[in-house]
Amino acid sequence: MSSHSLDSLFKPRGIAVIGASENPDKLGSIMIRSLSNFPGPVVGINPKGGEGLHTSVAEAVEAVGPIDLVISCVPAPATANALREASKAGATSSLICSGGFAEAGGEFDKYEAELQAAIDETGIRVLGPNTSGFFLPGEDLLACFVPSVKLLKPGKISVISSSGGVNLASCYSLARLGQGVRLGVGIGGAINVTATEVLEYLTEDEATEVVALHIEKVEDGPRLRAAVEAATRKKPVVALVIGRTDIKEFARRHTGSLDTSWELTRSVLRNAGAVVVDTEQEMVESAVALTGKRIPPKKNPQASFVTGQAGPGMIIADRLQTDGVDLPYLDSSIVDAIGEILPPMTHFKNPVDTGRPAPGLRKIIEITARDEQLDVLGAFAIVEETLNLTTEFVESGVTHLPVLASVDGPSETISKAMEIANQQGIPLLVGPTSLAVGIRALVEDSRARYAAELERIEGVAATDSANLATSSGASAGTTTPADGVTLIAEARHDDIFRTTVSLRLGANRTPAEHATPVFKGLAQRLITAVADADEINRFGALSEANWQPVDQVLASLAKTLEENPQTEQVSATLQVSKNGVIVLDSSLS
Amino acid sequence: MSSHSLDSLFKPRGIAVIGASENPDKLGSIMIRSLSNFPGPVVGINPKGGEGLHTSVAEAVEAVGPIDLVISCVPAPATANALREASKAGATSSLICSGGFAEAGGEFDKYEAELQAAIDETGIRVLGPNTSGFFLPGEDLLACFVPSVKLLKPGKISVISSSGGVNLASCYSLARLGQGVRLGVGIGGAINVTATEVLEYLTEDEATEVVALHIEKVEDGPRLRAAVEAATRKKPVVALVIGRTDIKEFARRHTGSLDTSWELTRSVLRNAGAVVVDTEQEMVESAVALTGKRIPPKKNPQASFVTGQAGPGMIIADRLQTDGVDLPYLDSSIVDAIGEILPPMTHFKNPVDTGRPAPGLRKIIEITARDEQLDVLGAFAIVEETLNLTTEFVESGVTHLPVLASVDGPSETISKAMEIANQQGIPLLVGPTSLAVGIRALVEDSRARYAAELERIEGVAATDSANLATSSGASAGTTTPADGVTLIAEARHDDIFRTTVSLRLGANRTPAEHATPVFKGLAQRLITAVADADEINRFGALSEANWQPVDQVLASLAKTLEENPQTEQVSATLQVSKNGVIVLDSSLS
Repeated sequence: MSSHSLDSLFKPRGIAVIGASENPDKLGSIMIRSLSNFPGPVVGINPKGGEGLHTSVAEAVEAVGPIDLVISCVPAPATANALREASKAGATSSLICSGGFAEAGGEFDKYEAELQAAIDETGIRVLGPNTSGFFLPGEDLLACFVPSVKLLKPGKISVISSSGGVNLASCYSLARLGQGVRLGVGIGGAINVTATEVLEYLTEDEATEVVALHIEKVEDGPRLRAAVEAATRKKPVVALVIGRTDIKEFARRHTGSLDTSWELTRSVLRNAGAVVVDTEQEMVESAVALTGKRIPPKKNPQASFVTGQAGPGMIIADRLQTDGVDLPYLDSSIVDAIGEILPPMTHFKNPVDTGRPAPGLRKIIEITARDEQLDVLGAFAIVEETLNLTTEFVESGVTHLPVLASVDGPSETISKAMEIANQQGIPLLVGPTSLAVGIRALVEDSRARYAAELERIEGVAATDSANLATSSGASAGTTTPADGVTLIAEARHDDIFRTTVSLRLGANRTPAEHATPVFKGLAQRLITAVADADEINRFGALSEANWQPVDQVLASLAKTLEENPQTEQVSATLQVSKNGVIVLDSSLS
Repeated sequence: MSSHSLDSLFKPRGIAVIGASENPDKLGSIMIRSLSNFPGPVVGINPKGGEGLHTSVAEAVEAVGPIDLVISCVPAPATANALREASKAGATSSLICSGGFAEAGGEFDKYEAELQAAIDETGIRVLGPNTSGFFLPGEDLLACFVPSVKLLKPGKISVISSSGGVNLASCYSLARLGQGVRLGVGIGGAINVTATEVLEYLTEDEATEVVALHIEKVEDGPRLRAAVEAATRKKPVVALVIGRTDIKEFARRHTGSLDTSWELTRSVLRNAGAVVVDTEQEMVESAVALTGKRIPPKKNPQASFVTGQAGPGMIIADRLQTDGVDLPYLDSSIVDAIGEILPPMTHFKNPVDTGRPAPGLRKIIEITARDEQLDVLGAFAIVEETLNLTTEFVESGVTHLPVLASVDGPSETISKAMEIANQQGIPLLVGPTSLAVGIRALVEDSRARYAAELERIEGVAATDSANLATSSGASAGTTTPADGVTLIAEARHDDIFRTTVSLRLGANRTPAEHATPVFKGLAQRLITAVADADEINRFGALSEANWQPVDQVLASLAKTLEENPQTEQVSATLQVSKNGVIVLDSSLS
């Protein structure tokens, strides 16, 4: 049975809450209250009936018309049959908030198997289990048992989170920055609807201008990579990946498991075009920064910012440089022009320190933005009632560059600034470090897309190494100095990204024709070490014509080294699959 | 002339604003308005007179009584003489907000020299130049030209910042977390009053319970180290050090210069007992976390937290582990007791995931806190109107452990939670990562004091290597494997921390008697490489009896290695001065 589109989940004609009751404190009753402003019919289902309740979805459909979405508030053992009944009545999607399936372990595995069987039979889409749900404030569709989501405003940013809790925390955090939400969704157990599929769906959603993606678990690495690559061509994706340290035992009890490497997942996302961040606060701030104009794909976008106070400016500059963002010296003509406005005691080669927020601020912004080497311009100031930083941007007439402001000051002043910034369409953050986080997001969005465009080397040879995904995460590494070449090769094998080989070429700048055979030999040995005995023969096929894409990659790495005299190391992570060999990740250092 | 105590700056009997005018938009007029609630006399001085103004400080003293503090709002060239006149009239301290001294370079150096001469002659204390000033909201003393500081409430945390702007940003950030400020001060150019001296002063200030310290520039490394060590015995100090990347050119135009290594300054502060952080937001959050009970000095305090939602809990656990905080498995009796309350599908070995904030939360907090291996207990929840997390702590009756809460949710709910938390004296933060930052601050405050107590090896031999501070920051490093011992020695020489030698002993666990002579030889060669030709002879003296403290350090490092089988490396940074050799920094890895 083919599965239905996510339209029935996110744009349902009618909604039924299964397991509703007359008790106002029960989950079902809370859910019906959350949905009270939904423009279509919302009905409660209880086999025993009750005031305002229907005894079945079929009965409800007869009374109110089509029901596309059912929200199950019945316990795990009753869920599978409830979905079968709903499907017969025409429902094509469902939300399961409760836990007690595979993540609980032991006896609960069987409820998950029953649920999976019902999905296979009916094709019904299932979001969850074990999530607080989803909400589209702009459509008055609040399928979430947390009452206060009614305070969230419609917005441009969609949040896709592995966790219902992180979805809520991220959306409330957006609200504190004056931002609304397009779609906020907690994926939960991901038995059927995955984060990747929602990302594919939102890529086509015009109202979603930026996607914030929180990942605990990757179901299908290559599909996620392709989805991010497709999405970032149209809109920015900011990604937070959990699992830097060992939290597997906890994770198994939540959304299932962490089956692949944190570093690899981040590398893959980054190389597919996403802005990868370290904390949920950075995720939210980066998403806000990206609601404005984007920097076009570039190898190394150049940044500048104007600051009302020197100390916060130094914090911002230090963080930007730590994060690898270039603050080039402004052109001397620009510096001279600024020097005619500012007193000699401030620094204005980049960043531009105005000493304090002065009436000349908008003029300084306008002059700085004239520097043609710049790709993004930020501004920070501690604002008083008399100074609105985004208004300074608007009055400066700078529209050709992506701009970003960050302010600090009393809460009331900041709230007013956010309101005005939203009207003006200029992204606004709070605090010094946040401006650095935001500028870095704009720069990374550009760089990552550049990398994704440049390094997309499609596989050319179909190999028979398809079924490698079966053996589990062993890994092996070695370092072999040979003929003055520093080579580092590492192979890894996991269920999510399949077999990956990481190759690094040292600074000795050996010609590609020399390094390549050594590399290949190493890579082969490593793949052999990782693969099961049965699979060694399959890999054998790679030693012939199928190495062609690897040759390409190695030649390109060697060329990059030659062209970049300061670069000490280039590396690439390749993925070997039935579609050939593709580059998952490559980097300079 | 001996200099006066900072009491005259922070507890003045009367205040004069020099350069006041009848124009309400001028800096002097703004300053007088900021001081309008000050309980003592506040007068404006202008030689030309004017409505409500005095023509000199002396005239004002006759009219209103003693003036301890003068605030100079005259331009740089007029400042030195204004201070001389004020000193004659009895003023013993001053604040200079304006810039245009040494930080401006060129012709401005002479105004700084004139100012320094006036200080030397009169002993008057000078805060600044180039700062927005300071404020003590609890004393209605707002010596700051930013009007909105009147919105800041009195509180337990004092902020000492190199920058007036960062001081303001930090205090507004504290206000957003519902916190007030005891003293907020921007040090500025530090021509006379330094951050170190203010820290020494606040160590004796009962109303200051936590100090947040932002450092761009260290004037005297050993004095700062001693001040932090003394302060942290009484109250926590959180330190943010700027200058991870090269921002020297900008810094010269601000507070002077960045003359020493970012890493070394952080190491020294940490080893003196401070909690070292990476961003101004972490500085503020750590300070708030430390307003509650402290963990006593311990080598490795053990942490746990209870979470209302699994996803945010994983973010918190991942960050804590990344930051090196231990989350030990809870005792099996505790796990069993929790298992009687919680359904089997959640994780509760540590952290304790309650699935969602349930009525049993306070009971779970109470049970978890019974685990005797724990030194700190945190809690996170997305709060609704019906759940107040700090109240759960209070109702749980846990008072023997430091506790810390963090919440997320709608702004109104958070504001109400902050108000209640302040009344209850329980530190409250916002967002998942913030709980990890706060717990880490409590753990680091304990560990750093433990390190400071353990590793205080006072110098015993007076060497004649006193005047090394004259040659500037060259550095040299080498790695020498000898007889199976891995040795890393590095010497550095700068104006702030003088000559430091970093010695690292590898994992090969060579007995001290073997390693020591090799170490000494290396250290000697390095010091020789760093020191000027003239100084080599002085260092020669170190090869004899004066090496005794170094011997002690080396023996202690070797002993530590022996006692800690998992440790791969121990290192120590020593400072050679006329007082002997002291340990600035030592660590295990």
